[in-house]
Amino acid sequence: MLIRKLGRGVALVGVGMSKFGAFPDKTSRDLFVEAFQELCASVDKGFDPAEIEALYIGNYSSDLFEGQGHTAPIMADAVGLTPRPAVRVEAACASGGVALRQAVLAVAAGMYDVVLVGGIECMTRLPTAQVTDTLGSAADVLYETPAGFTFPGFYAAIATAYMHRYGMTPEHLMHVALKNHANGALNPKAQFNITIAAWMQNRIQAALKKGRPAPTWRDEWDFLHDDAANPPIAWPLRLFDCSPITDGAACALLVAAERARAFTDNPIYVIGTGQASDVPLHSRTDLTTLPAARTAARIAYEQAGITAQDIRIAEVHDCFTIAEVVAGEDLGFFATGTGYKMAEDGVTARDGARPINTSGGLKAKGHPVGASGVAQAVEIFKQMRGEAGPRQVTRDIPLALTHNVGATGSTCVVHIYERK
Amino acid sequence: MLIRKLGRGVALVGVGMSKFGAFPDKTSRDLFVEAFQELCASVDKGFDPAEIEALYIGNYSSDLFEGQGHTAPIMADAVGLTPRPAVRVEAACASGGVALRQAVLAVAAGMYDVVLVGGIECMTRLPTAQVTDTLGSAADVLYETPAGFTFPGFYAAIATAYMHRYGMTPEHLMHVALKNHANGALNPKAQFNITIAAWMQNRIQAALKKGRPAPTWRDEWDFLHDDAANPPIAWPLRLFDCSPITDGAACALLVAAERARAFTDNPIYVIGTGQASDVPLHSRTDLTTLPAARTAARIAYEQAGITAQDIRIAEVHDCFTIAEVVAGEDLGFFATGTGYKMAEDGVTARDGARPINTSGGLKAKGHPVGASGVAQAVEIFKQMRGEAGPRQVTRDIPLALTHNVGATGSTCVVHIYERK
Repeated sequence: MLIRKLGRGVALVGVGMSKFGAFPDKTSRDLFVEAFQELCASVDKGFDPAEIEALYIGNYSSDLFEGQGHTAPIMADAVGLTPRPAVRVEAACASGGVALRQAVLAVAAGMYDVVLVGGIECMTRLPTAQVTDTLGSAADVLYETPAGFTFPGFYAAIATAYMHRYGMTPEHLMHVALKNHANGALNPKAQFNITIAAWMQNRIQAALKKGRPAPTWRDEWDFLHDDAANPPIAWPLRLFDCSPITDGAACALLVAAERARAFTDNPIYVIGTGQASDVPLHSRTDLTTLPAARTAARIAYEQAGITAQDIRIAEVHDCFTIAEVVAGEDLGFFATGTGYKMAEDGVTARDGARPINTSGGLKAKGHPVGASGVAQAVEIFKQMRGEAGPRQVTRDIPLALTHNVGATGSTCVVHIYERK
Repeated sequence: MLIRKLGRGVALVGVGMSKFGAFPDKTSRDLFVEAFQELCASVDKGFDPAEIEALYIGNYSSDLFEGQGHTAPIMADAVGLTPRPAVRVEAACASGGVALRQAVLAVAAGMYDVVLVGGIECMTRLPTAQVTDTLGSAADVLYETPAGFTFPGFYAAIATAYMHRYGMTPEHLMHVALKNHANGALNPKAQFNITIAAWMQNRIQAALKKGRPAPTWRDEWDFLHDDAANPPIAWPLRLFDCSPITDGAACALLVAAERARAFTDNPIYVIGTGQASDVPLHSRTDLTTLPAARTAARIAYEQAGITAQDIRIAEVHDCFTIAEVVAGEDLGFFATGTGYKMAEDGVTARDGARPINTSGGLKAKGHPVGASGVAQAVEIFKQMRGEAGPRQVTRDIPLALTHNVGATGSTCVVHIYERK
């Protein structure tokens, strides 16, 4: 495939996100308005929303989750942006990242100077089993779903193949969960704004309060190995290996680079975008990598003119802990077959050599599937500008990356960000 | 809104569509493959599908209709185009037109030279009431659906408002149905490849064959006024005022204008694209026009540097007969309040001054909602190249237009085509 340079520079100049969590009284439009209001306040020099020329909305299935199709103009109306063209983009859990890409391409192409990209999903209204089935429809429903697969099963298959080949153990995955919860504990927008150790303590206190015998966990390792506290979902994946079901919205304001300084003195530039598709998992010969992620990353690196080793921090798609392990290798951060050691060794921690998912990731921040790809950009924007509060990575961040996956990698999209 | 010129020329060089109809044994992917194979054969000088750099797939809700989300990579896989980026675009019944627009913008922007746009919908598996509800979720489900509205009701409201203001009668709408069925009768891909007069004769023969008394309809007017043959759906709309429930797929190959001659000596150029959003119908002050269609048309005309009067033929979104009437006015073909006379007067017939829906339109060709916007481009391509067979418009067609509507006009998208 020919990799073309972006036509002109594209800058992120504002971001916003709703609190992520379970909000039974809110709809997608409520959450989107919340995110949009934060975005408006985030633009340093202020701006008139009437300057927005188009909207791209990432959403997996408001149809199935809320019974609301045709979601993009609904969102445009909710924030007063009709009659601007509003386009919904769907790519399963990569919907947000693919919407971001459409917005980047549209600005780079000179079609628009100012574009709003949003991501939304409101998932918690349905019973959990129905959510699992709804997500399952992002797999191949002719050949995979009838075999009994839902996404925990798919990623469990990836994990077992990876364990078999490279010697990873379930404990390596627990390190990913511990790290991401440690980050999420510092993110007030996270659904699980709590460490796993604190979670354990809460469970102990709750038992005592109810007059029940206190659980005998000595530390979070005991907790994570307890089949009652951390039940197996699809071996080797346990509950704390899985991202949660979440309601949330995120948005970002993209402008032509030449206009960025009118919005802020501290813009973040999007200098690379790669996207690839792939056959469904059952058609692949290797379960230990997502080839579409490798392709998307290669395109994005080449477009940006950098290599994986130039990236300082990344938000990657940890829908399950194993997904973060595979992502680190697919993105070229770590050699194939070594990624599983990185959380345990502290490499991917906030103070490590390559911080990953400083936001808490999908795992702790939450995973409103259509919003996640945009929320990744929100975190990168804040980290690169030094606005991430207590979870701020202290070192300088000239280059960063986001990695968003649909299903088991039948869509992958990668973006690269630069602070000049 | 600032209207920018397209960055570079974009040409249509091949099209394909499946037969439209009810195919209980087929899925969207079967229909898409059928359309894609026809497209490949339609490229005059041949081409290697590996040249395709990206796919945009218009689809309203494979989620709700087939239980299949994440449809774009499924389609890419079905025609062997992974790992190209495959993006699903959803805009209710304008999904196909909006996908076409994304492809046009991507080529115009210089991001890709060769792009495949597809539209798919497989609707007939669900019981009719469930189809109606699924389509209904493209309205505003918080404020409109709970009031009991489904789409026949919405368009009936538009029709009654229009009748009240301009003096139209239900018979004017019947002329639209008669005209579109007359066109569909000449389109072998149409779901209803039959005139209303022939339909009536079939009903008479069927009754006689079963030994029942023959219906006493004297002509198609009798037939259309018979509450049993043409039952009221939502007054003043009867069955033959409504487009059907359809399975179908359509696709088109778009290339950079400078490469068009490598594919065909007879390319059709896309010289204008306009899209607009709008508030839901309940928020509007006037039911007799779709403001988003007027905005989209104004943008497309200005981009193309032409006026409505330059357009020779058009495929417009006749989801209901009244929608064709309103479209003719919104697009500037006919003065406001006069559009309802045009079918009766023969102006919009194949041999009229302004042929509309020579394909049969959504009404007779069928309306697989995500495919319709792309199928409109298929008809325009064939007509402009003189390849429309028995339904070919005889006069020269230098300029043509497609008009695709989502819901009651909360999305509208208009494209303008030129044969140079």
